[in-house]
Amino acid sequence: MGRETVHAADTPAPFVVTYIYDFSSQRGVSIRMEEVREQLVRQAQAARQAAMTLANVSTAVKNGALLAMAEGLLADGAYILQANAEDIQQARERGLPEAMVERLTLNEKRLAAMAEGIRQVAALPDPVGEVVEGWKRPNGLEILKVRVPLGVVAIIYESRPNVTADAAALCLKSGNAVILRGGSEAFRSNQAITASLVRAVESAGLPAACVQMVQTTDREAATQLMRLNGLVDCIVPRGGAGLIQTVMQTATVPVIETGVGNCHTYVHEDADLQMASEVAFNAKVQRPSVCNAMETLLVHSAVAGEFLPAFAERLRAAGVEIRGCERTRQLVPWAVPATEDDWYTEYLALILAVKVVDSLDEAIAHINHYGSRHSEAIITRSLDAARRFTREVDAACVYVNASTRFTDGFEFGFGAEVGISTQKLHARGPMGLRELTTTKYVVYGNGQVRT
Amino acid sequence: MGRETVHAADTPAPFVVTYIYDFSSQRGVSIRMEEVREQLVRQAQAARQAAMTLANVSTAVKNGALLAMAEGLLADGAYILQANAEDIQQARERGLPEAMVERLTLNEKRLAAMAEGIRQVAALPDPVGEVVEGWKRPNGLEILKVRVPLGVVAIIYESRPNVTADAAALCLKSGNAVILRGGSEAFRSNQAITASLVRAVESAGLPAACVQMVQTTDREAATQLMRLNGLVDCIVPRGGAGLIQTVMQTATVPVIETGVGNCHTYVHEDADLQMASEVAFNAKVQRPSVCNAMETLLVHSAVAGEFLPAFAERLRAAGVEIRGCERTRQLVPWAVPATEDDWYTEYLALILAVKVVDSLDEAIAHINHYGSRHSEAIITRSLDAARRFTREVDAACVYVNASTRFTDGFEFGFGAEVGISTQKLHARGPMGLRELTTTKYVVYGNGQVRT
Repeated sequence: MGRETVHAADTPAPFVVTYIYDFSSQRGVSIRMEEVREQLVRQAQAARQAAMTLANVSTAVKNGALLAMAEGLLADGAYILQANAEDIQQARERGLPEAMVERLTLNEKRLAAMAEGIRQVAALPDPVGEVVEGWKRPNGLEILKVRVPLGVVAIIYESRPNVTADAAALCLKSGNAVILRGGSEAFRSNQAITASLVRAVESAGLPAACVQMVQTTDREAATQLMRLNGLVDCIVPRGGAGLIQTVMQTATVPVIETGVGNCHTYVHEDADLQMASEVAFNAKVQRPSVCNAMETLLVHSAVAGEFLPAFAERLRAAGVEIRGCERTRQLVPWAVPATEDDWYTEYLALILAVKVVDSLDEAIAHINHYGSRHSEAIITRSLDAARRFTREVDAACVYVNASTRFTDGFEFGFGAEVGISTQKLHARGPMGLRELTTTKYVVYGNGQVRT
Repeated sequence: MGRETVHAADTPAPFVVTYIYDFSSQRGVSIRMEEVREQLVRQAQAARQAAMTLANVSTAVKNGALLAMAEGLLADGAYILQANAEDIQQARERGLPEAMVERLTLNEKRLAAMAEGIRQVAALPDPVGEVVEGWKRPNGLEILKVRVPLGVVAIIYESRPNVTADAAALCLKSGNAVILRGGSEAFRSNQAITASLVRAVESAGLPAACVQMVQTTDREAATQLMRLNGLVDCIVPRGGAGLIQTVMQTATVPVIETGVGNCHTYVHEDADLQMASEVAFNAKVQRPSVCNAMETLLVHSAVAGEFLPAFAERLRAAGVEIRGCERTRQLVPWAVPATEDDWYTEYLALILAVKVVDSLDEAIAHINHYGSRHSEAIITRSLDAARRFTREVDAACVYVNASTRFTDGFEFGFGAEVGISTQKLHARGPMGLRELTTTKYVVYGNGQVRT
């Protein structure tokens, strides 16, 4: 077999991808894939070993490692910022949009925030070891359902380098070994942060392989990582809709989907309209770029005339564009006509779709048809309407008289947030440390056999 | 576009697959795929509608439907057995192995057992509506985590037609609409059973689309079904390792994996050897063809000389073949030499791999390396050994002084069994009705907004 080594030009130093070409079979790519896969398998095997240790160490040891990680990041600040400066320079050379460069940028303040985030994770209760439930069978078997780590978690994420420290801390606290795969534009920053974290982990007496990073920005590596069934227990994608869809379509390892939010607020005919204005305004305007922001407002026709014109003025003053149904436009003449597409759209911007409906039924049907099952709210005084809305709307979080913006691990009191799940298996809604665990049945007997 | 209609010869009547060939693009298969997909999408949309109704009906209505299903199966017995006779005839004509024909065969007794199984599901507690937990936030928000149905569940299974009734009953009780996709050899039987179930469901006032069956045995239909993200909430494969692997590799919809069991029993140096003999014999011999049967026995070297020769004789008398390590073969000369492959193998037969180990550590390391994380047991008198084994062995169920055969929904007291999960997300170990549900956060406020 003839082999030729090519240095891939678009791979950032110091890592060099070796491209191997098999002249006899002319199967260059598949051989390279095989080598990428072999390296990942070695990493994942090391992660499995580390995970077995990590699953059984005390909370004190894990917290010690976390505090060392926080200190280490600050001590290694100059080194990390130097690596980040190189990423930024390359991003500028490649003409990346300034918003992306901004997300990529680290500074002393952001490093301090990363360290503080890790310290907060250290301060949280350890989810591992909790006895979730337990019972005794008639034959005397005692069954305990005990919370244990997932094992090896892969996190696939985009440009913000702070996710590297955040994800590593959450996984370590929940007893999981982590394999990190960040965006190519932050490769040097992520390497420097990971190197710092690994030193801290080792200094606390834990295996270095508790925290690892995929050592290439090659897309094929991410694909292979998503298919390491038996070695990787779970994948958590963190990023935009495109990244999440790619992971969902590619992975054979189970995925925790963190999804889009096409969230609604419905103002019922008996709503406190002052409250409706406050809650809906908050849901749209307080931070429009996030998944739990409101995208469509539904208003009952009995109160539309009283509510909509004034509320629309309030939105206009805040710079919000309104895309309305025909009846909305009769009340708010400056509103843009809404198309069918608008009801499906997660704007993540100061744009709001508005529709007048004639009943609670119509509101629920609209939400269940167009919504993304993330967060939905009703404003009402009616117990019956509240009960029907919360029962019949199919979403991770359903609110009565409160802003959809509360769908968040911190706001729910979890102390940390892994993401917000819009899938129905394993976790739904805000995910904290507990959602990075699984359970194990521990069964005690005294010689029971099955007959 | 030219179109030609071909009746696929191997598709059982009365359903006719229409094969469409696009002469201009010569893309016959993809157009057929598209039609198959369209039909599935229509079914899944109808299932979604039905699921919304089913999620909110009372337990009494669901139980009424279940009892009607049980009665209906008995009333429609002649019709179902006629369809089954046609399946059996075709299976014989195609030369299917007698064991498969046996699994396929229905009779009065098996029909009665199916009906009785449905009645038992009716008698179980309804998992839907349970408040799993709830708390109040400092800002006054009241958060409830409420158990709700998954929505639309697809069950992909193999030859036994009784799974059709069983899966439909479990899904209906847990408030889920179900799309069933059984094996091609049982197509007529499954159609007849489904038709009977649907009549019962409708007679109880529920939508017919609560229970549906994929109307073709085409493999492409199964593939498409596994990729209906947004319409199907979850797939449960029920069958052999091949089926489960195919679903894991193909599906983009979240899957609950029910996996293989390479289960171990470890006899520690301080074990009650009489208990060890009873428990290990039960784990191997009581029903060797199932996933929770023992496949490898590990014996501490300090007791191997006393335990193994007599236990091996007991196994031999029961027709068990032993594949032993070298030290085992010194004690049991008739044992076949074990190869590396044996430690990985789920025999599902009267074969047992036996290895002598020198420590608890070696036993744990062997299990974590070769095991499939299903069910593992230790026989010991030592509290410390029991605690270390249950902590450090990575498996869905870990037993102290009891047979691995207890890993079962009924034995755990769940009253029903959906399968045994060997994955770590969502459910791990025996799955009952509760594992066919998810949760929803219901949040009550009085105008809270986020600041």
